Amino acid sequence: MILIEQLKELSYKSPSRIVFLIIDGIGGLPHPETGKTELESAKKPNLNRIASESVCGLIDPVGAGITPGSAPGHLAIFGYDPVRYDVGRGIIEVLGIDMELKAGDIAARGNFCTIDSRGIITDRRAGRISTEKNYELCQILNKIALRGVEVLVTPVKEHRFVLILRGEGLSPELTDSDPQQAGMIPGKIEALSPQARKTAEIANEFILQAGATLKNEPSANMVLMRGFSQRPAIPTIPEIYMLNPAAIAVYPMYRGLARLLGMQILPAGNNIADQVRSLHSHYGNYDFFFVHFKSTDSRGEDGDFEAKVRAIEEVDNALPGMLDLNPDVLVITGDHSTPATLAMHSWHPVPFMLRSKWCRPDEVDEFSERACVAGGLGRFPAVNIMSLAMANALKLKKFGA
Amino acid sequence: MILIEQLKELSYKSPSRIVFLIIDGIGGLPHPETGKTELESAKKPNLNRIASESVCGLIDPVGAGITPGSAPGHLAIFGYDPVRYDVGRGIIEVLGIDMELKAGDIAARGNFCTIDSRGIITDRRAGRISTEKNYELCQILNKIALRGVEVLVTPVKEHRFVLILRGEGLSPELTDSDPQQAGMIPGKIEALSPQARKTAEIANEFILQAGATLKNEPSANMVLMRGFSQRPAIPTIPEIYMLNPAAIAVYPMYRGLARLLGMQILPAGNNIADQVRSLHSHYGNYDFFFVHFKSTDSRGEDGDFEAKVRAIEEVDNALPGMLDLNPDVLVITGDHSTPATLAMHSWHPVPFMLRSKWCRPDEVDEFSERACVAGGLGRFPAVNIMSLAMANALKLKKFGA
Repeated sequence: MILIEQLKELSYKSPSRIVFLIIDGIGGLPHPETGKTELESAKKPNLNRIASESVCGLIDPVGAGITPGSAPGHLAIFGYDPVRYDVGRGIIEVLGIDMELKAGDIAARGNFCTIDSRGIITDRRAGRISTEKNYELCQILNKIALRGVEVLVTPVKEHRFVLILRGEGLSPELTDSDPQQAGMIPGKIEALSPQARKTAEIANEFILQAGATLKNEPSANMVLMRGFSQRPAIPTIPEIYMLNPAAIAVYPMYRGLARLLGMQILPAGNNIADQVRSLHSHYGNYDFFFVHFKSTDSRGEDGDFEAKVRAIEEVDNALPGMLDLNPDVLVITGDHSTPATLAMHSWHPVPFMLRSKWCRPDEVDEFSERACVAGGLGRFPAVNIMSLAMANALKLKKFGA
Repeated sequence: MILIEQLKELSYKSPSRIVFLIIDGIGGLPHPETGKTELESAKKPNLNRIASESVCGLIDPVGAGITPGSAPGHLAIFGYDPVRYDVGRGIIEVLGIDMELKAGDIAARGNFCTIDSRGIITDRRAGRISTEKNYELCQILNKIALRGVEVLVTPVKEHRFVLILRGEGLSPELTDSDPQQAGMIPGKIEALSPQARKTAEIANEFILQAGATLKNEPSANMVLMRGFSQRPAIPTIPEIYMLNPAAIAVYPMYRGLARLLGMQILPAGNNIADQVRSLHSHYGNYDFFFVHFKSTDSRGEDGDFEAKVRAIEEVDNALPGMLDLNPDVLVITGDHSTPATLAMHSWHPVPFMLRSKWCRPDEVDEFSERACVAGGLGRFPAVNIMSLAMANALKLKKFGA
């Protein structure tokens, strides 16, 4: 198999443009009454027309039977073997709140929680306090001073915040303090390697001071920390593919991943119509665009079949605005399936289509799970998508003489 | 995945015969007016009939989106992972002019060129001098004597020749003298490692003497050298598969590759009809035949859609002569696609079919890109072809107890 390092040798710059529309959790399963999946149930004339002009297939994000998290699903789409590149969700969340993570920084996810007088956790999420309250509490925590490190506490949403420790010689090899269930006492953070001992002391000192500071807060009187991690060494999309890439994503986590991979983050507004407008405004300045659509996944996770169908129709309605730009290569797929009947991410292969002047169209004229089985690309690993897109954009040299 | 070393453990000799017909660059793209590919446009009753009796599919020579050179494309077909086995084109060209390359020999490709009085290259190909002139100049160069090595200069075609340096302790880790464009002075050959220093001196001395010898030749007064390389350590087809293989290829480069892999080189004449006659004459003496058809690729690279269609029809016409022999296993495919619309090698999967008493035929009754999508083998890596062929020839033992 061609590795990402070898793609670097083959890639070259050219004026063609590539657009990836990632419809999160797009794959589904048949509705028990109609026998049709969400995609098969939706009115989607634009997706179907593109399918008839595309080469289609089904992707395995990580591997057969493997249900991907959001990060591995997207890493694969951008050509990073998700088994080889393990990016902690904590790191991605940090990048997604527009915090710049420096090399050596330690980041962790935090929850505001409540504990009783014995120190036992009564609510891991402190009743999902308001984001406003979260901002207020983070301001308090930011006053904590620890010897030898800078402490940065940043609110995310509701009860969630991010802690960054910035200093010399820190290590992320630490256990969590969050026991992941109520009724227990928060754990002491332990070093998983000798060089992490100093960081463990610092983290425990932070938690101690946070508890002391919040002691009299009725809504949230303690913090739970998990997922200590460091910015991973990962080659960027500009480095590997010689692309100048940009991301248009409404949700923080996808912006975070995109930033980690070297993409410029463009304004995304609140919905797909805003995203298409942003694509138009910036189309001249980049040669690769990652447009991320979230609500198909959210409605799938809600188990709301009809709402997921409507989300698909919402994307379909927005497509003419993207097609106006006539990108040299247009890829439409998802990072995994999220069948509404399962109400969670799943392992099922994901419909895929690629349209370009140089694709070899097949007989598929509908964008759905069943129709894509007959696609010209068959079933293939998602990690191959980028090389296919690069080839179709005529941005890859010949391999060998 | 099963490695070539493991196939060696499973292979055994048996009387069955395998024939590979490799139609170079066979895969194509739709004609903009008809919407049909070269294969879909050609009259090919024999190819279609074989398809209806075969198990079909589409192969990826190197990987998704990767456009293979001729050497990697063929290596994959014979079961050698082309990412693992990197054979320099210089080496293959040497083998293709019926020069036996000994272990330790250094080979390089040479161009006769012209330089002006300041030493600047005016024509990298010396106006493509006649092959006769080339022979004459090579005879002159063969008189060059260098201390400690034997110098062998062999003409190829037009302005191209091959230099072999034979001696002790030589290394191919050298830069080129050929700057790949006119208007520049030929480079001095530099050693890329300390152990190549002696070889660099020898190569520079060869170029110096060649320039002095050719000084007064009006048609070609200098040489340009590139691609210094050594015969790679690569296990042969007889070693791995216990086969007694033979190649029937008109073009030197394919004979060269076949010889490197341990095949006997049989007379090929000038066209596919000659090749089929040669197959008949030698059918009793070997159990594996590689028949290589070139002009589909050449016409594709010319961008001549109609001529590529005619080349396909030429192969189809010759097929009854091959079918007369009723080989136990017949494989028909290509080493890569060469769509006439692109006028170059491409990354598109290549139609594949395998006919044997023991294949499991599918519904495909046409040999074309779109029809083979529905083949029983789906889309698969070309490196798997040999084990499929060996299995169908009942030449592979069971794996494991």
